[in-house]
Amino acid sequence: MIPVPHGFSFAVAAAGLRYQDRNDLAVIYSDRPATAAGTFTTNLVQAAPVTICKEVLADHETARAVLVNAGVANACTGEEGLLNAKLSIELAGDALGLSLDEILPASTGVIGMQMNMDCWRAAAPRLADSLGKAGPMEAAQAIRTTDAFPKTAWAEIEHNGAKARILGLAKGGGMIAPNMATLLGFIMTDAQVDVAWWRQALRSAVQDSFNRITVDGDTSTNDTILALANGAGDFKIDTEPAKQALLEAMTEVCQGLAYMVAQDAEGGTKVAHIHVTGAASNHDAELAARAVGTSPLVKTALFGQDPNWGRIVCAVGRSGATFDPDRLTLHFGKILVYREGRPVAGDLDGLLAPLMRLHDIDINISLGDGPGQATILGADLGHEYVRINGDYRT
Amino acid sequence: MIPVPHGFSFAVAAAGLRYQDRNDLAVIYSDRPATAAGTFTTNLVQAAPVTICKEVLADHETARAVLVNAGVANACTGEEGLLNAKLSIELAGDALGLSLDEILPASTGVIGMQMNMDCWRAAAPRLADSLGKAGPMEAAQAIRTTDAFPKTAWAEIEHNGAKARILGLAKGGGMIAPNMATLLGFIMTDAQVDVAWWRQALRSAVQDSFNRITVDGDTSTNDTILALANGAGDFKIDTEPAKQALLEAMTEVCQGLAYMVAQDAEGGTKVAHIHVTGAASNHDAELAARAVGTSPLVKTALFGQDPNWGRIVCAVGRSGATFDPDRLTLHFGKILVYREGRPVAGDLDGLLAPLMRLHDIDINISLGDGPGQATILGADLGHEYVRINGDYRT
Repeated sequence: MIPVPHGFSFAVAAAGLRYQDRNDLAVIYSDRPATAAGTFTTNLVQAAPVTICKEVLADHETARAVLVNAGVANACTGEEGLLNAKLSIELAGDALGLSLDEILPASTGVIGMQMNMDCWRAAAPRLADSLGKAGPMEAAQAIRTTDAFPKTAWAEIEHNGAKARILGLAKGGGMIAPNMATLLGFIMTDAQVDVAWWRQALRSAVQDSFNRITVDGDTSTNDTILALANGAGDFKIDTEPAKQALLEAMTEVCQGLAYMVAQDAEGGTKVAHIHVTGAASNHDAELAARAVGTSPLVKTALFGQDPNWGRIVCAVGRSGATFDPDRLTLHFGKILVYREGRPVAGDLDGLLAPLMRLHDIDINISLGDGPGQATILGADLGHEYVRINGDYRT
Repeated sequence: MIPVPHGFSFAVAAAGLRYQDRNDLAVIYSDRPATAAGTFTTNLVQAAPVTICKEVLADHETARAVLVNAGVANACTGEEGLLNAKLSIELAGDALGLSLDEILPASTGVIGMQMNMDCWRAAAPRLADSLGKAGPMEAAQAIRTTDAFPKTAWAEIEHNGAKARILGLAKGGGMIAPNMATLLGFIMTDAQVDVAWWRQALRSAVQDSFNRITVDGDTSTNDTILALANGAGDFKIDTEPAKQALLEAMTEVCQGLAYMVAQDAEGGTKVAHIHVTGAASNHDAELAARAVGTSPLVKTALFGQDPNWGRIVCAVGRSGATFDPDRLTLHFGKILVYREGRPVAGDLDGLLAPLMRLHDIDINISLGDGPGQATILGADLGHEYVRINGDYRT
């Protein structure tokens, strides 16, 4: 059903680290060394698996597997947490026939809790038994924490008769418990790449996808995107068009996953596409777009299907972006609601009502005639979030 | 804000026929005779205004105005209802300076109730005072009954330097009280047309729009679509491409309004786009699509974001369409769920979860390799409908 890149297989197991009666471990396995790239949280507090991934990637161009556990983040766990992470990799590696430095770990879940290593000891053989029997959807299910649904996206490209498959799995989206809102993303392809290009390509794809969503404005201690290219297919990046095709497909897969993360905002029902143009710089545009995308007032208005331009204008004004308020223009979709500093007259609520019911809402903001632009995906804020975070609003 | 075709203006008034504290009368007024077309309910029970419209259109090529009241359908009201309808037209006509046979009436609301003519007598002068002061959105608001939002759509076309504006207003969508679920639609343009082409064009546009939605499967006593072309602009249908452009724009406006009617299903949250292809005939395809679109089991599954292929397959099977069940194939969006008579294996629920959260759901059904196809828009069924119509399901 989901096309799996050649040479990749999956394993899942129920270790009971925190969840009962469900799989909470997943392995993405390559039958040969895969060129490896990673991007990580910018939070100064970083979980043990993030530290380990960075060390492995600093010393090695390739990896054979990604090992993910859901339930325990293994962050703020000190030296014991680091040792436990290494032990978990060793246990899984022994079972799978891989060495310590061939496995990239990722964890998501509760911060400050140590992993129960007996759970790992018991689960490692079951993980090995499962290898090749599980599919990507089982893996996507196993890495969920507060996610409402598993997240997968894929693309297939063909260039000069050679084919590559690109597959991505992700988890993330929960807002109510920001400590659980880790974003994990794993990209696989069977294309043949070199490590310098691959690492640059991942940075570019992440910049245009995962870095363009805002769910609760928090950055987790565990955010990790890993990308493996194992060369098991015949697609090579030997020409510019081939590179371009692979980068575009990879970006598309990352964007598909990022969209689902925005869509899975806890209690949320909509995805807002906030486009800012005409800014003095891309930086100004991004400031404005993020201010709108993270404003609880804007987000609750979206949930209530209220085309509240005032809250949007207010968020842009306080965003730190430099612009002339008398040039600010705002459209919902194609419908002009605010032009050059003033609201448009008329029954806008009536006109916008059918549009505000949609799942995807385009908020188009022009700050003037500058060259800067940015797009951010955000979510609305539902009752659950408002109830729990009621004191967020004054 | 909404581009009004040249020569048209609007009037609204609060007559208090049934609603208090809101406008319930609307006039669409042309400053010159406008070529007039109409399509009407196929229900054998027809309201007084429908009878009058048919008589006027049978004897006259043009009209000057449409007169709409919301609140009282004036259906099943016998001879008294017909006389009241004519009196209401006379009162409005006297105030507006139009004769009886220049006004096309439409009513929506409670069936079997007589209109209070004192309300009409008091409101007629206010209607005349309002002429030219109200805009299309006020008119769209005034003709609402159970509608959650006013419905407007428009298009502008240009051909050989000549421009035409096409504007549509509609009401309809309520499901809980089918007696109130009248569909009214009014199309205006300033293009220059001849009556034969215009009436054919309206039939074609309605066939591809309002006749492709199903809200509750009911046909009201009052369903009316009227179209006025007053020639106040410079666009002429003097070539085939010009005719084609105007027909396409008119169809697009009707489709925009029809989409909003489907979107406004009471208690509904989604629009289902049901596409049937590969049928033995277009008739078979439409039978299948309508069976899916009207199935309460399918509709409640959509509300619950449940990709319940079983209910869809079941609805197609009982639809009366002729097909080989072993050829039946079903996709939600691009995702294959049922192929040639059998469900696809795997975790479809996980794969489909993000898609089922969208506002617009594509249900693509292939019945084989025949030439027949049809598309129907439907709505989901929310809690309110299920509560009130609970005995609908067994």
